[in-house]
Amino acid sequence: MQHFDSDYMEGMHPAILEALVRTNMQKTTGYGLDEYCVAAREAIRKACAAPDAEVHFLVGGTQTNSTVIRALLRPHEGVVAAATGHIAVHESGAIEAGGHKVLTLPHKEGKISAAQVDEYLKWFYADESFEHMVFPAMVYLSLPTEYGTLYSLAELEAMAEVCRMWKLKLFVDGARLGYGLAAAECDVTLADLARLCDVFYIGGTKCGAMFGEAVVMRKGLVPHFFTIVKQQGALLAKGRMLGIQFLTLFTDNLYLDIARHAVEQAARLKRAFIERGYELYFDSPTNQVFVTLNAEQEKRLRAATTFTEWERLADDRLVVRLATSWATKPENVDKLIAEL
Amino acid sequence: MQHFDSDYMEGMHPAILEALVRTNMQKTTGYGLDEYCVAAREAIRKACAAPDAEVHFLVGGTQTNSTVIRALLRPHEGVVAAATGHIAVHESGAIEAGGHKVLTLPHKEGKISAAQVDEYLKWFYADESFEHMVFPAMVYLSLPTEYGTLYSLAELEAMAEVCRMWKLKLFVDGARLGYGLAAAECDVTLADLARLCDVFYIGGTKCGAMFGEAVVMRKGLVPHFFTIVKQQGALLAKGRMLGIQFLTLFTDNLYLDIARHAVEQAARLKRAFIERGYELYFDSPTNQVFVTLNAEQEKRLRAATTFTEWERLADDRLVVRLATSWATKPENVDKLIAEL
Amino acid sequence: MQHFDSDYMEGMHPAILEALVRTNMQKTTGYGLDEYCVAAREAIRKACAAPDAEVHFLVGGTQTNSTVIRALLRPHEGVVAAATGHIAVHESGAIEAGGHKVLTLPHKEGKISAAQVDEYLKWFYADESFEHMVFPAMVYLSLPTEYGTLYSLAELEAMAEVCRMWKLKLFVDGARLGYGLAAAECDVTLADLARLCDVFYIGGTKCGAMFGEAVVMRKGLVPHFFTIVKQQGALLAKGRMLGIQFLTLFTDNLYLDIARHAVEQAARLKRAFIERGYELYFDSPTNQVFVTLNAEQEKRLRAATTFTEWERLADDRLVVRLATSWATKPENVDKLIAEL
Amino acid sequence: MQHFDSDYMEGMHPAILEALVRTNMQKTTGYGLDEYCVAAREAIRKACAAPDAEVHFLVGGTQTNSTVIRALLRPHEGVVAAATGHIAVHESGAIEAGGHKVLTLPHKEGKISAAQVDEYLKWFYADESFEHMVFPAMVYLSLPTEYGTLYSLAELEAMAEVCRMWKLKLFVDGARLGYGLAAAECDVTLADLARLCDVFYIGGTKCGAMFGEAVVMRKGLVPHFFTIVKQQGALLAKGRMLGIQFLTLFTDNLYLDIARHAVEQAARLKRAFIERGYELYFDSPTNQVFVTLNAEQEKRLRAATTFTEWERLADDRLVVRLATSWATKPENVDKLIAEL
Repeated sequence: MQHFDSDYMEGMHPAILEALVRTNMQKTTGYGLDEYCVAAREAIRKACAAPDAEVHFLVGGTQTNSTVIRALLRPHEGVVAAATGHIAVHESGAIEAGGHKVLTLPHKEGKISAAQVDEYLKWFYADESFEHMVFPAMVYLSLPTEYGTLYSLAELEAMAEVCRMWKLKLFVDGARLGYGLAAAECDVTLADLARLCDVFYIGGTKCGAMFGEAVVMRKGLVPHFFTIVKQQGALLAKGRMLGIQFLTLFTDNLYLDIARHAVEQAARLKRAFIERGYELYFDSPTNQVFVTLNAEQEKRLRAATTFTEWERLADDRLVVRLATSWATKPENVDKLIAEL
Repeated sequence: MQHFDSDYMEGMHPAILEALVRTNMQKTTGYGLDEYCVAAREAIRKACAAPDAEVHFLVGGTQTNSTVIRALLRPHEGVVAAATGHIAVHESGAIEAGGHKVLTLPHKEGKISAAQVDEYLKWFYADESFEHMVFPAMVYLSLPTEYGTLYSLAELEAMAEVCRMWKLKLFVDGARLGYGLAAAECDVTLADLARLCDVFYIGGTKCGAMFGEAVVMRKGLVPHFFTIVKQQGALLAKGRMLGIQFLTLFTDNLYLDIARHAVEQAARLKRAFIERGYELYFDSPTNQVFVTLNAEQEKRLRAATTFTEWERLADDRLVVRLATSWATKPENVDKLIAEL
Repeated sequence: MQHFDSDYMEGMHPAILEALVRTNMQKTTGYGLDEYCVAAREAIRKACAAPDAEVHFLVGGTQTNSTVIRALLRPHEGVVAAATGHIAVHESGAIEAGGHKVLTLPHKEGKISAAQVDEYLKWFYADESFEHMVFPAMVYLSLPTEYGTLYSLAELEAMAEVCRMWKLKLFVDGARLGYGLAAAECDVTLADLARLCDVFYIGGTKCGAMFGEAVVMRKGLVPHFFTIVKQQGALLAKGRMLGIQFLTLFTDNLYLDIARHAVEQAARLKRAFIERGYELYFDSPTNQVFVTLNAEQEKRLRAATTFTEWERLADDRLVVRLATSWATKPENVDKLIAEL
Repeated sequence: MQHFDSDYMEGMHPAILEALVRTNMQKTTGYGLDEYCVAAREAIRKACAAPDAEVHFLVGGTQTNSTVIRALLRPHEGVVAAATGHIAVHESGAIEAGGHKVLTLPHKEGKISAAQVDEYLKWFYADESFEHMVFPAMVYLSLPTEYGTLYSLAELEAMAEVCRMWKLKLFVDGARLGYGLAAAECDVTLADLARLCDVFYIGGTKCGAMFGEAVVMRKGLVPHFFTIVKQQGALLAKGRMLGIQFLTLFTDNLYLDIARHAVEQAARLKRAFIERGYELYFDSPTNQVFVTLNAEQEKRLRAATTFTEWERLADDRLVVRLATSWATKPENVDKLIAEL
């Protein structure tokens, strides 16, 4: 039996574990003020070609989304997102618990377009009673999306332009960012994100770390973000654990190298599914594979591996998701392919 | 030029004004503990055939929705509503500001059905990751809806049954309740609402009062609701103003009588529109009339009256809403009809 | 039996009632966009010698405090207030419900001083861990205070200066402002408040109106305050009711004239208490009288009038508060004095 | 130069690190549903002699306090705490951000008494206007307190009894619980806490773990606490990291053994301070040592070690705190003693 349920089933990349072992009994100050965090911030600024950016380390994705959004929005403002966006569906109402509405737009393979946002803003300000409604003030994108799809550089630039025009903040959730950047068809870089977004984050939890997300924001965007992080219960006392992890990931290109491995294993899986006559729900270029199963295929796959159930279609076929990660062993992919 | 923009353009029914004049220099205790509030509560309980119900007086509709919902829901819970529901669209995010997500369902002429709610709940609990989502815990209906349409008694009973099954609270926003109850085709009574809902409110602001909404709730539903009302800034210091208004409205059947007048004037308008070849956007049986205007009709109507723009259709026709009220004079309806 | 419980026992000043009667059946637009609100705003700006100030009308005091504070503060910020401040004690946690801590300082007869605030800020920023604490970002004063006492112009100017130095907003709660401005010893004017405060409000509910508070704020202080007011459930649909009331109060000096009457009646009461050998808890120059009663005096006063119990002292004497208002009749004061 | 700033300067106990190394590449399900979490919960229930208790793992202390309190309180309710309580001072307003007031009582060496709480509740319900105030609904204690002091079993039982009488929840913050339980003079056990509290937590971050707090609550106390944890951004994706840590700490008595070591080193320090003529600020029986330094002592101590500045007294002497931990080496204590 194989396991392709998700990309956070193992612990951490061995290089990180090794760094934790090496540094364990050192004494440092807490709350991210230690030398490892300082060095990790510097490494990330360098990787982003953003020498002035602020870098903050938080523990998890929902926490990061929630903290960033409530730090940035004023009370009457909401955040525009795809109806499938993580903040719209799978965060137990964390954004609303912070007082803000998620304003959803229809998605296409998990994505929304600059044109949609532009149209929405036009509609909003044309409405006689817009002052009785929630003001759209931020655009939230996931890169890759919850469907493993990507925004091209041209799409991101168009979105950033629409945001500038309408004075919206642009926020990119990069929980799986590594797997996006490492995809063959991706033409977006960390430097592009730092240049185009007001704030984005580099996911650690799903991309090699034990936990941790690195928020990169325009300098001065949120005064006293540190205190807001603390208020949200998102400030790790032994903050160096985050610094050590991200410093390791951003040394010798580790973050992208291990992500590329995951994407390659997903590509092998995809090809095998197609060759065996399975139907892809749609083509995802990153580390997630979406397959539509008929009854017989479902039975066969259940016998071979664990996975995530995505959606039961009206014709009773089941859409499932398989995810690879930095930790996926090629031989496990081989074994699964053998049983398809 | 006539004015059919909304049902809250005038002050208050003359009988209420007279009562305010008569009682103005009396001294009473504050916060709704005075004798007028006591009598008004009793009159409402009687009208609802609900001798044990709690009655609370608040000032406005958004305030009432927001206070009731945050008083009833726990942190992880949300409220199911039509996508066109007032709380979903026109309350500037008041529900989210209280920490709760509005879970919207597609509407049909402003309504949602028991079957839709049942299906939504089935889908919710069937999802592998429902514990990462917002729990549906309440159904919010408007009666009449924002489109002036009505739920039948059978529809309400079916909804109440689905709510019982899934342990959802049922909350009816009655901002325009009078205009619903007074409609010819309405088979729902106040007693039905008191029997079927956990909580509902009887709108004053739009139905004869200067301001005020009377919340009717199952006894013991929300311990210390008084203090939550105070916390929400919704407790009127000179609370007797609410008592006097509702006592007047619930004496000698005034509330329904003046609502019936509004519905009759709206019916006259509707018939006139149809006779002159206008197209109704849909047929609303209460005090709101929705008309789809072509360019020539739009021009003619703009010259004759003010109204609310509802929606510009893709074919460039304009949907508008005209509202009558307790204060609408038949001669103003005559004048408008003459210019259609 | 007389009634000196509070200053909000009667309805509204007859001139306001007359204006309501006169305008009742007029049709106006809602939400404070009508001509009465426009004129009332202009009258208030003139009275404040503040031609650029923004004026917003809300319904009640707790609502106003809560809305202003959450509109102005960022998530990590709190508001400094006297331990006896209304927001600290008697608003059912409305400020905290909006996410903000009330940072209390010890009071002296209901007041805090510029020196106290300065010292608090010095202490705050000197603390190694201030970034783990709530940032003081606003000073809240009541004028008059909950004890009926006043800040002098020199005290207010000193407070404004400290606020400027430490970048705190200055907010004055004027729920009883009229009774302060009308006091003989008051050297503060509306123009001083408009000049020194970022935001303050002119209380209507306790000073002649049926309800209503007029917020005066520095232009541009809170973008989209209208929408935040709506979100808080604090936007009155028939907004003209607020405009008509404040326009009446700010025509021909009515606001101050009727407040002066209340202060004079309170002064008569105070003198009578002293002459009859009662002990004042402390000397309040406005419309509230605080008296410390021994057992025999308590018995006598209970037979003569209703009042508010303030505090039972350790020696079992009872501190009570009597309040006069614009509506207090001299003959009722006479009757009470006769029974002291 | 030695370092006695805090008890969270090192990584994690070697046994935990070893367990992480051993299990790193295993695949498990996320969110705390894995076998390590299951086993750790069972071990904790056993240590608490509470077979029915619910055990939830969160990441940090502020997060745990904030999540537990907002999960348990209704909107109008607040939490009673010592004025020095962590939630009252050093959590950046996390409790207020969740909508709830912290109702502070004067402390004695960091503690409050059952008698104080009883008196507070009596005062509250005796106040005429208690319905306009925040309802005390929970008592928050820290064990040990922020001053390193302890509640005796008799004190805890008295507090639990007062809570039962007034229907308050009892919540104990055990961020440093190990160092309390391991103190010679402590007569409270985990079983006592499980019996007397509605909810408490066993601190990991400061007591041997890299991070993590184990919440122990009465069964059924908070339906859907899992979802509330998720909403608060407090649900660790790779939840097994918490299970592995707590399973290690609760195997072979490790948690208490390593805490005892810390307390012994603190006792050595305390004795040395006294012998060298230093003055203790007060006597703390756990792992924190509070010393009042004159100018000369301050100079000497600054040369010898880092520490936390606690408070500058009016006479200019400085109160400092030194903390030992599971990781404190006796030779470092020796070195510091040599330089006192």
